[in-house]
Amino acid sequence: MFCSGIGAEIMNKRNSKNARHNQRGSTPVRKRNNDSNRGLGGDRIEGRQAVRELLLAGHRRVREVVLASDLDPSPILDDIIDLADEAKVSIREIPRSKFESMAKTESPQGVLASAAPLHDYDLEDLLALGPEGQLPFLLVLDGITDPGNLGAILRSAECAGVTGVIMPQHRAARVTPTAAKSAAGAIEHLRLCSVSGLPKTLTRLSKAGIWSIGFDASGDYPIDEVRVDGSGVVLVLGAEGSGLSRLVSERCDSLAFIPMHGILSSMNVSAAAAVALFNVAGRRQKVRR
Amino acid sequence: MFCSGIGAEIMNKRNSKNARHNQRGSTPVRKRNNDSNRGLGGDRIEGRQAVRELLLAGHRRVREVVLASDLDPSPILDDIIDLADEAKVSIREIPRSKFESMAKTESPQGVLASAAPLHDYDLEDLLALGPEGQLPFLLVLDGITDPGNLGAILRSAECAGVTGVIMPQHRAARVTPTAAKSAAGAIEHLRLCSVSGLPKTLTRLSKAGIWSIGFDASGDYPIDEVRVDGSGVVLVLGAEGSGLSRLVSERCDSLAFIPMHGILSSMNVSAAAAVALFNVAGRRQKVRR
Repeated sequence: MFCSGIGAEIMNKRNSKNARHNQRGSTPVRKRNNDSNRGLGGDRIEGRQAVRELLLAGHRRVREVVLASDLDPSPILDDIIDLADEAKVSIREIPRSKFESMAKTESPQGVLASAAPLHDYDLEDLLALGPEGQLPFLLVLDGITDPGNLGAILRSAECAGVTGVIMPQHRAARVTPTAAKSAAGAIEHLRLCSVSGLPKTLTRLSKAGIWSIGFDASGDYPIDEVRVDGSGVVLVLGAEGSGLSRLVSERCDSLAFIPMHGILSSMNVSAAAAVALFNVAGRRQKVRR
Repeated sequence: MFCSGIGAEIMNKRNSKNARHNQRGSTPVRKRNNDSNRGLGGDRIEGRQAVRELLLAGHRRVREVVLASDLDPSPILDDIIDLADEAKVSIREIPRSKFESMAKTESPQGVLASAAPLHDYDLEDLLALGPEGQLPFLLVLDGITDPGNLGAILRSAECAGVTGVIMPQHRAARVTPTAAKSAAGAIEHLRLCSVSGLPKTLTRLSKAGIWSIGFDASGDYPIDEVRVDGSGVVLVLGAEGSGLSRLVSERCDSLAFIPMHGILSSMNVSAAAAVALFNVAGRRQKVRR
């Protein structure tokens, strides 16, 4: 199931700023290989960035790559074809009309792939040190229902250096093709964990010494005034519209809000997630320096 | 064209945190009432939040509100109906199938409205003090082509307290129904300005003493190290994928990047916009205290 050789080789061509991170995705902790599918989804990947990242990471078995037959040449398509060839993944070219009826997202950009479902990590895996030895920087999503928002949040989380994402098993979006496309490959590198109850999960995190910060419009402190140091931290984000559920917000160590400077009373949940994640990521890095 | 009485009355019911901002949207500077439509769009509004905000702001003439006939009652629908009644805007209920064929966005939530196109402000309006006497906090969008991203950025910009947004007239998304829905009402409060050339616009901003910060993956400084004080500032964001154009980036006073902490090399442009906007907004506010 691992093709880390390929991944590592191609990764070396990337921006050197990311060089020190290249090991992160290629050596994930995997303790539950065979009972992995509790239903996170992620087995259908559509869109060029998402498919390239799936092949590049090489963490999951890829069954096949399907291309619409009328695509103009482009560097990212060349990458996809080269990576699929190297990993011995079959490539099927089909007429545009057939491709469109097969695709499940709105704009699959002529490229889709079938892969093994995403690995569902144990919570205990996420409590240990991150893949680079860093203290946990976790994200809990309390009932995000829109797949596009879920994917966008996962992408921002990966870019912010989150070491694991915890989602409820019920009443929330799974990693649908739309979420996977919007995540643009982030799901290949993030450790995802689905849990049956968020309140008891927060209690477990607290016992493990991980400080939880819930985000809510009615929070107690503006985000800049919430304690952030280099130790383990978990950010807890609520659903679109309704925010954090009561039981979840009661178990957070602190409740923060993002100060609004305009007339609208709320921002999009994925924009709020990006602001919160990068605010905390930046401050954690300063502490570590 | 103004119905600020209604807007002001309803706004008083809102979160008191925003009370001091209520004047902002209700007294915009409008110097070019009659030659206003250089084509920003915005005349079709779909989605509940966007339509409620259109009526609540009362800045534009609303021709009619159209509802699908099978909607379950909800507080936001009640708001829309009450606001339309107060403003003497006709409400038309039509069968779901007819509504769906009329709608131009993917999920209009059973509500759409036709309105006068958005006012296209003069650049000089944006260089003056903001509606609350604040120094300009502007945003330049260098060729954002995806309407969903454009709308999401406008929403974040409004929430961050931006006093004006500058967009190129060509090679960029207009405020389509999809952009308007994604903006969730932000376009009713933001001063938007389309310009024929971004490089010469940046020169004009510079002459007006406004400091420009371009965002680019190859920027010189991480965002936290870029100079931000209380004076006039403009953030310049590049297109999805290609980033800032050369001519635009050369005219920026400083070039910043958002540090990436993961494996992916780039985040979504609207997530990056949210991070940049709130980082700068927060630091400007600290300076003002």
